Amino acid sequence: MIDELCAKIRQLKAPVVAGLDPMLSYVPDYIIKQSLDEFGETLEGAADAIWQFNREIVDHIYDLIPAVKPQVAMYEQFGVPGMEAYQRTVDYCHEKGLIVIGDVKRGDIGSTSAAYAAGHLGKVQVGSRKLAAFNEDFITVNPYLGTDGIKPFVDVCREEKKGLFILVKTSNPSSGEFQDRLIDGRPLYEWVGEKVAQWGEEVMGCSYSYVGAVVGATYPEMGKVLRRLMPKSFILVPGYGAQGGKAEDLVHYFNEDGLGAIVNSSRGIIAAYKKEPYASRFGPEQFGEASRQAVIDMIEDINGALQARG
Amino acid sequence: MIDELCAKIRQLKAPVVAGLDPMLSYVPDYIIKQSLDEFGETLEGAADAIWQFNREIVDHIYDLIPAVKPQVAMYEQFGVPGMEAYQRTVDYCHEKGLIVIGDVKRGDIGSTSAAYAAGHLGKVQVGSRKLAAFNEDFITVNPYLGTDGIKPFVDVCREEKKGLFILVKTSNPSSGEFQDRLIDGRPLYEWVGEKVAQWGEEVMGCSYSYVGAVVGATYPEMGKVLRRLMPKSFILVPGYGAQGGKAEDLVHYFNEDGLGAIVNSSRGIIAAYKKEPYASRFGPEQFGEASRQAVIDMIEDINGALQARG
Repeated sequence: MIDELCAKIRQLKAPVVAGLDPMLSYVPDYIIKQSLDEFGETLEGAADAIWQFNREIVDHIYDLIPAVKPQVAMYEQFGVPGMEAYQRTVDYCHEKGLIVIGDVKRGDIGSTSAAYAAGHLGKVQVGSRKLAAFNEDFITVNPYLGTDGIKPFVDVCREEKKGLFILVKTSNPSSGEFQDRLIDGRPLYEWVGEKVAQWGEEVMGCSYSYVGAVVGATYPEMGKVLRRLMPKSFILVPGYGAQGGKAEDLVHYFNEDGLGAIVNSSRGIIAAYKKEPYASRFGPEQFGEASRQAVIDMIEDINGALQARG
Repeated sequence: MIDELCAKIRQLKAPVVAGLDPMLSYVPDYIIKQSLDEFGETLEGAADAIWQFNREIVDHIYDLIPAVKPQVAMYEQFGVPGMEAYQRTVDYCHEKGLIVIGDVKRGDIGSTSAAYAAGHLGKVQVGSRKLAAFNEDFITVNPYLGTDGIKPFVDVCREEKKGLFILVKTSNPSSGEFQDRLIDGRPLYEWVGEKVAQWGEEVMGCSYSYVGAVVGATYPEMGKVLRRLMPKSFILVPGYGAQGGKAEDLVHYFNEDGLGAIVNSSRGIIAAYKKEPYASRFGPEQFGEASRQAVIDMIEDINGALQARG
């Protein structure tokens, strides 16, 4: 799947992923009204609203970008109906030819990680059949439990040719509290980054490993170091736009081949219609068009910065 | 909820939680056959089998223990139908008067943690209504992202009088890879433990904080240190039994008041019928009775060790 991701990024000239993190507050009122009229003020109603919202956004952007990254928490908060909306979103994005990065940040002891890996990336055995459940192409994983919590995910990736992005340095303000603490003179995130590179060695695609890393756009100097430490790991970069990351800071997350990183924007794309410069051009009824324009602008912004680097 | 947990532990004399982590391989063949006959070899069939299995176990043990800890991965691996089985299990345990610790190990940047917190412990706003989704009483949380990834969970706990167990030192063999690394001369897990104590200060129950910690039974020396570092944090202790933790090692996880820790066993209880000394007394049809006996024996084992400590 990492090879497909590389190929699609090259083909579309778009190292960009759209974060499908639909807070209800992003969904235009007329969609919420339709869904609640049909399902009542219920979890089903909320889940339907975010699914309708997602579908229209996907319809407007699927031809521009290689991948989407649904944040499962935004679905899980609506319980089982929310998880149905998550599954529909994953399946619909697949129908539209998009690669799906499930932002699930799972991670546990070995036998439990094996269950997460089967349910999200692999297959579960039920009687004589092997069945896929959520079936994302990549997922994000938390490294706090160490190698035996990660290995079951890597094993499933090898089998299914799927991929991981392991949290190394996250984009949030307090990520440094533990991640930046020095161990033998080097911050924890570097030690995690080295492990990511090691875990990835045995599952290589053409140029990049199946095992990638999450490094926030908000810490560009650390991104530069981590790029060198994990030369074969694709970096998923959250934090562009709404969280403060700028395109010119992100060029160091890429390798010389122009690959090696994919930049995520969530709010900046899916809630574009609520903010300038899009709000005055696109009303709530054109939220899909606003998202499309935001994606076009983001691709141009990042490609511009990459070209300026030369 | 922490006060309810303390009260129930005292009343039942049972600082024990049963881990409802139903792998399909634990479920007796005749239950799997019934479910697959009804639903086919589908995710629905698998989910029904684990739900039927859970229900019979809960029926046999609910009067002995204060709490259960379903591991969501074992449900999530069966996709949306699995999450339905999880929800049914949570709701059924509540009906039986059990406290439910959702072992979900979530954790993300602030806005995303807020969504997880709402969906698992709190309520989501849908139109004019506030609705609970999964509605566990406690959940486990991963600390890798630091304070701003934890605070939204603490806020919801304050509001709903619910609780957390934050991963400090996990029970798995490679937990030391990052958790034991020295930072200014002290292992990372101690720094995390200190933060857990701090995060918990502002949400105190009668004797213990709403914010507890996970410390594996397999590292008793570290448990001793962490008990002192986090005097007001309840410790959830996985790793007893099947993973190798012994009762005499666990006394140091308790405070002088006989409280402060709750010990989990999963396989050792729910798959008791498959292993000696239970296998020869209880056939697969008596798996519920075997679980009950295993719970009785575990309570006796732990209380015996606590009494021996004096």
